[in-house]
Amino acid sequence: MRNILLLLLLLGITAKGWGQERKRAREYGIKIGVLPVGKYNAITDVPGVRVGHTTLVQGDSIRTGVTAILPHPGNVFQEKVPAAVYVGNGFGKLAGTTQVQELGNLETPVILTNTLNVGTALNAVVEYTLQLPGNEQVQSVNAVVGETNDGYLSDIRGRHVQEEHVLEAIQQAQGGAVLEGNVGAGTGTVCFGWKGGIGTASRKLPERAGGYTIGVLVQTNFGGVLQVKGVPVGEELGQYYMNQKVKDSADGSCMMVVATDAPVDARNLERMAKRAMMGLAKTGGIASNGSGDYVIAFSTNEALRIPYTSQTKTQAAPILRNDDMSPLFMAVIEATEEAIINSLFMAETTTGKGGRKVEALPLNKVQKLLKKYHATN
Amino acid sequence: MRNILLLLLLLGITAKGWGQERKRAREYGIKIGVLPVGKYNAITDVPGVRVGHTTLVQGDSIRTGVTAILPHPGNVFQEKVPAAVYVGNGFGKLAGTTQVQELGNLETPVILTNTLNVGTALNAVVEYTLQLPGNEQVQSVNAVVGETNDGYLSDIRGRHVQEEHVLEAIQQAQGGAVLEGNVGAGTGTVCFGWKGGIGTASRKLPERAGGYTIGVLVQTNFGGVLQVKGVPVGEELGQYYMNQKVKDSADGSCMMVVATDAPVDARNLERMAKRAMMGLAKTGGIASNGSGDYVIAFSTNEALRIPYTSQTKTQAAPILRNDDMSPLFMAVIEATEEAIINSLFMAETTTGKGGRKVEALPLNKVQKLLKKYHATN
Amino acid sequence: MRNILLLLLLLGITAKGWGQERKRAREYGIKIGVLPVGKYNAITDVPGVRVGHTTLVQGDSIRTGVTAILPHPGNVFQEKVPAAVYVGNGFGKLAGTTQVQELGNLETPVILTNTLNVGTALNAVVEYTLQLPGNEQVQSVNAVVGETNDGYLSDIRGRHVQEEHVLEAIQQAQGGAVLEGNVGAGTGTVCFGWKGGIGTASRKLPERAGGYTIGVLVQTNFGGVLQVKGVPVGEELGQYYMNQKVKDSADGSCMMVVATDAPVDARNLERMAKRAMMGLAKTGGIASNGSGDYVIAFSTNEALRIPYTSQTKTQAAPILRNDDMSPLFMAVIEATEEAIINSLFMAETTTGKGGRKVEALPLNKVQKLLKKYHATN
Amino acid sequence: MRNILLLLLLLGITAKGWGQERKRAREYGIKIGVLPVGKYNAITDVPGVRVGHTTLVQGDSIRTGVTAILPHPGNVFQEKVPAAVYVGNGFGKLAGTTQVQELGNLETPVILTNTLNVGTALNAVVEYTLQLPGNEQVQSVNAVVGETNDGYLSDIRGRHVQEEHVLEAIQQAQGGAVLEGNVGAGTGTVCFGWKGGIGTASRKLPERAGGYTIGVLVQTNFGGVLQVKGVPVGEELGQYYMNQKVKDSADGSCMMVVATDAPVDARNLERMAKRAMMGLAKTGGIASNGSGDYVIAFSTNEALRIPYTSQTKTQAAPILRNDDMSPLFMAVIEATEEAIINSLFMAETTTGKGGRKVEALPLNKVQKLLKKYHATN
Repeated sequence: MRNILLLLLLLGITAKGWGQERKRAREYGIKIGVLPVGKYNAITDVPGVRVGHTTLVQGDSIRTGVTAILPHPGNVFQEKVPAAVYVGNGFGKLAGTTQVQELGNLETPVILTNTLNVGTALNAVVEYTLQLPGNEQVQSVNAVVGETNDGYLSDIRGRHVQEEHVLEAIQQAQGGAVLEGNVGAGTGTVCFGWKGGIGTASRKLPERAGGYTIGVLVQTNFGGVLQVKGVPVGEELGQYYMNQKVKDSADGSCMMVVATDAPVDARNLERMAKRAMMGLAKTGGIASNGSGDYVIAFSTNEALRIPYTSQTKTQAAPILRNDDMSPLFMAVIEATEEAIINSLFMAETTTGKGGRKVEALPLNKVQKLLKKYHATN
Repeated sequence: MRNILLLLLLLGITAKGWGQERKRAREYGIKIGVLPVGKYNAITDVPGVRVGHTTLVQGDSIRTGVTAILPHPGNVFQEKVPAAVYVGNGFGKLAGTTQVQELGNLETPVILTNTLNVGTALNAVVEYTLQLPGNEQVQSVNAVVGETNDGYLSDIRGRHVQEEHVLEAIQQAQGGAVLEGNVGAGTGTVCFGWKGGIGTASRKLPERAGGYTIGVLVQTNFGGVLQVKGVPVGEELGQYYMNQKVKDSADGSCMMVVATDAPVDARNLERMAKRAMMGLAKTGGIASNGSGDYVIAFSTNEALRIPYTSQTKTQAAPILRNDDMSPLFMAVIEATEEAIINSLFMAETTTGKGGRKVEALPLNKVQKLLKKYHATN
Repeated sequence: MRNILLLLLLLGITAKGWGQERKRAREYGIKIGVLPVGKYNAITDVPGVRVGHTTLVQGDSIRTGVTAILPHPGNVFQEKVPAAVYVGNGFGKLAGTTQVQELGNLETPVILTNTLNVGTALNAVVEYTLQLPGNEQVQSVNAVVGETNDGYLSDIRGRHVQEEHVLEAIQQAQGGAVLEGNVGAGTGTVCFGWKGGIGTASRKLPERAGGYTIGVLVQTNFGGVLQVKGVPVGEELGQYYMNQKVKDSADGSCMMVVATDAPVDARNLERMAKRAMMGLAKTGGIASNGSGDYVIAFSTNEALRIPYTSQTKTQAAPILRNDDMSPLFMAVIEATEEAIINSLFMAETTTGKGGRKVEALPLNKVQKLLKKYHATN
Repeated sequence: MRNILLLLLLLGITAKGWGQERKRAREYGIKIGVLPVGKYNAITDVPGVRVGHTTLVQGDSIRTGVTAILPHPGNVFQEKVPAAVYVGNGFGKLAGTTQVQELGNLETPVILTNTLNVGTALNAVVEYTLQLPGNEQVQSVNAVVGETNDGYLSDIRGRHVQEEHVLEAIQQAQGGAVLEGNVGAGTGTVCFGWKGGIGTASRKLPERAGGYTIGVLVQTNFGGVLQVKGVPVGEELGQYYMNQKVKDSADGSCMMVVATDAPVDARNLERMAKRAMMGLAKTGGIASNGSGDYVIAFSTNEALRIPYTSQTKTQAAPILRNDDMSPLFMAVIEATEEAIINSLFMAETTTGKGGRKVEALPLNKVQKLLKKYHATN
């Protein structure tokens, strides 16, 4: 069953073909936070970071995919990056956590997919890494694979993601604007009762704060009481957790990937990672019992790259001090909040397994609410 | 110097004498979250929980105090309560953390005070516990003492809190309405650039979610970009972190105490504690580098009390399942957000050390903003 | 390449055919610790626990396999067991860690294999769980898969473990005596420079300490300075880390699985798990940088089983108090130490990839040393 | 009561006057581990580290004291050192833990004392730090104060340690040979049923491993089954936990302080700290439920000093790589084991509160056992 040929919709076609055009939050005048954004307002604003998606939409019941985030264009195994993982709520299967936490580095792309295909993605990343030129002697690979559960819309038990889909996401990864909404690992996700998906955002700190860029990418599949820039959209639309009139478990998960070019070591990357949960909170997420809320943070700063092998016992690099971390913390909070909102703004109504339909966040109504609440510029 | 007699202003007098009357957020029509509140909208809505304050205001430069939270009216050492501590950001001196984390219980009142008087408060709680009837053989006491730094308004280096002030706060602890604002450990604190202090709130879950009560008390002394029920008050008033025009480190701290009567064990209390940071996030806090953001959570459920000594090897009690925790998580987030806002609404303009003046949150302006942003009912 | 037919040697044949007979440590009069052992001195002494191995030995260069540990004979997903994971040193790929830590339970068999086949084993356990009768609606599975790196003796890059090997290990799992040494996931491992493998041991507490059974199973693949019941075997044989005359990285890993029938909740299971590292220390292990040292602990106590779904919000069960945990801690230390020693005593000289040969621990010499050091009874 | 004048016995007099002369383990030919030791085989072999004791022995029932460990001769608050804390078993009151863990640095001397005087020691260290030249503007101090419970031999409820005793320990701190046994914070402790106390040891890595020095100081007050260099002394002498014939709770605690001049950052210092528990395990300690087993590790490396204030956002210093940590891990294990053994070898029979007598480890018998077990060179 899992060997049948899947129809891989080209991403551009997917985005266009699925409904009326939707735009990112800022294009509606929604400005989240006080810090300036990067060029693309995307994780790819962090130099060298690339994102690739494989979107699987087939027949009535396959709505899943893979998203790959590459920290730099080189051989990541040979040139590891400082990294950290923070577990907001651990009802999830993120693979690779403990080695990142122990060694403070990341040696593969970060892969996001659905819950039951983590093993497949692990295999793909391991094989990918073994086959990279220069890795001929490598015998140990710590693949980082996260997931959320798209089983409401997709035949998750069918485990339709194949290793080649993972490799394709890695190979297609590119910089610049990032496709959001129903793409890649966000194809079948649900967020606050509406269609969720992939979202991204970035912040560029002022020079007095170092001028660093902080980018966030999220895979949204969780619940709570949606707020958009503080506006109680969930309450106004009658769609929220603990509303007696709707049935909503608030479960589901959120994967968050944080990148920065700032020279931040693993300890302070962990502190940055913790702040992503604060950004999630500002959208109304509650990290319910069944939520797998994880943050993976890494620095792309070249001076901090960790070579696989080295002739020297020590490495010296300028590392940002504790005292100068607060602006980066703030940037993570803002960018995470906006990335989540972007995922909702860009995701489109989707019908999947068993004819289940998940509506897109109704932007017309949201726009009215934002106006009513004075939240647009 | 620390032995001189201090003028202990009676709390009622303090609150009245210090300015025009201020009211809690709900009295202005601000309804935070979707869950119903308890009778007093206070941590004391959790049956048995009592709160006491000692407020030290003397001369020009002493603006400090002590707040005590007692989990139940009995001998807490002999009847410990399940408890957890979560460290949001550990730039703080919370004493007692590791034993609570290891054993999953709390055996003393929780004391809040200023940064440099933690030792004094520890001594006081230890002595208090040793002297309690029934504790004649006790030789080990894990006192839980938290703090924030009130050194902007108060002569913190003078370390003016004495052991008797701590004992007084414990002895005066009572149920019912809780004094908020410039009282106890909140006397000299600053929050989002305005006068912070003590705040509290509670939630009462619907019966279908167990009917449990969740209460939160906070000592607010931190920064970021203030939002009141999503309204960008900080931005509107031009007072926020990373605003080039004002100098604001966003540092400072927030102590959060979470109580519930639900039968929650230490593991799930820790999960509840983590959600308090999400409530803090919703007020615009960023957990800056210099912030000591800690959450202490405990259950007062009688069946879960842990006796100091026991004839049996095992203890059986109904314990809430993971699957039923989400409403409690939500309640913690909501109550923490509202407790922080209450601390700002109730705190009054204060002049302290070196003539420094910290303005109270200007409620007139805030009310206008809340109206403009449609945030009041 | 990975699809070729592998020769699965039956375990009994393997053990017999590979060299002279070797015996467990106790059979040489080596008594580790002061507590009595269980009937089989194996993890299977904990009622209901079963162990299965799939051993892959093919041609010159495949020396790997799978070991499965089943916590009880039922559907583990439907009847989860309280569990914890402790990370001694996280240079490893243990999948499933964070969910066990968050929810405090285990919902699949524990699988051990080689480093680069974790993904395959994940897939196998997920599929196994999805196909179990009663799990037709299951959409999320937290498979726990640990590993050590057998790449010195085995063609690990060939990733020869297939899903059917994992399923076979699960299906063959049984109680009673456990095969040790070069079997299952221990087929290609190296420990202290000698052939390592699978080892197990147990302790049965006296009735005054509750009469509980504690069992440990290990997959040994690490280094240091071997001590057998305190005797400096490594030093005497000139084979140890930091010996200038030999080249030994001390790297490698140790997976440790701890089971008990005592009614221990997740919090205290984590404390038990930490003690396994203390047992490892007593064998001379140093938890080197490159070591993936993990402990998975679970309780098989029936009253503590966690149903997948429940009609009630709470669960009441007798739970062992903190105050009565110390004998269990001691039992974990002793059983872990002995399980590691058993793995070395039972493993046989192995030649593998590239003609590399790893000698078995020379028991003749060891016996002499034990006598010299008065360590045998 | 606590204000009465205490008789402070000079340390030299104490050591001499209390019984026959005892010597450190190495002087009896006991060589623990395979690495060479430093000049004094003490934590003070790490350049700049100093140790001071205040010993309180008065009347029948005061047997307590203070030990101070200073990381360098300068103002530690202004020049903080990278540091970490690891909690082996958290039944203890170590103050300052969370800030060290969050910021990765230590800003005061480390103080060890008895359980009920942690508050007093906190106050003393805070006042000491505030009064240091250069600290006139300091308003926040994270004092690190550990403890074990000497209440079996000492009137711990009397809380006899005064702030001046703490200051005295700091002021008397010196390099070179360190007094061990019944001194300072070890005056009233009990270990494995015999008199415990202060112990220390060090390791000097060979040049090929960096040539670094690692020093450990312990305050021993715990239980289990004593082993000396692997020899089952506890069993042979019939004095061990779970021996039906003796009553021994195995409770108590062990504070461990690890220092190194290697350029190790906070993340790897935490990993070093974890290895101290492995050294404790090798002496037969079991980290019983009631044990407060903590490790504080710091690096004195000058390039890694963290200034209180800085004009630059970043700091560059050569930092030891993960790959080169294993020899340091091994050194911590060895030095901790030996430091604990030294504490027992140097501690003398003590009679205290209520006429209770705790025998010194009987070195005559131990020597015979070591000979029988071939453990001396």
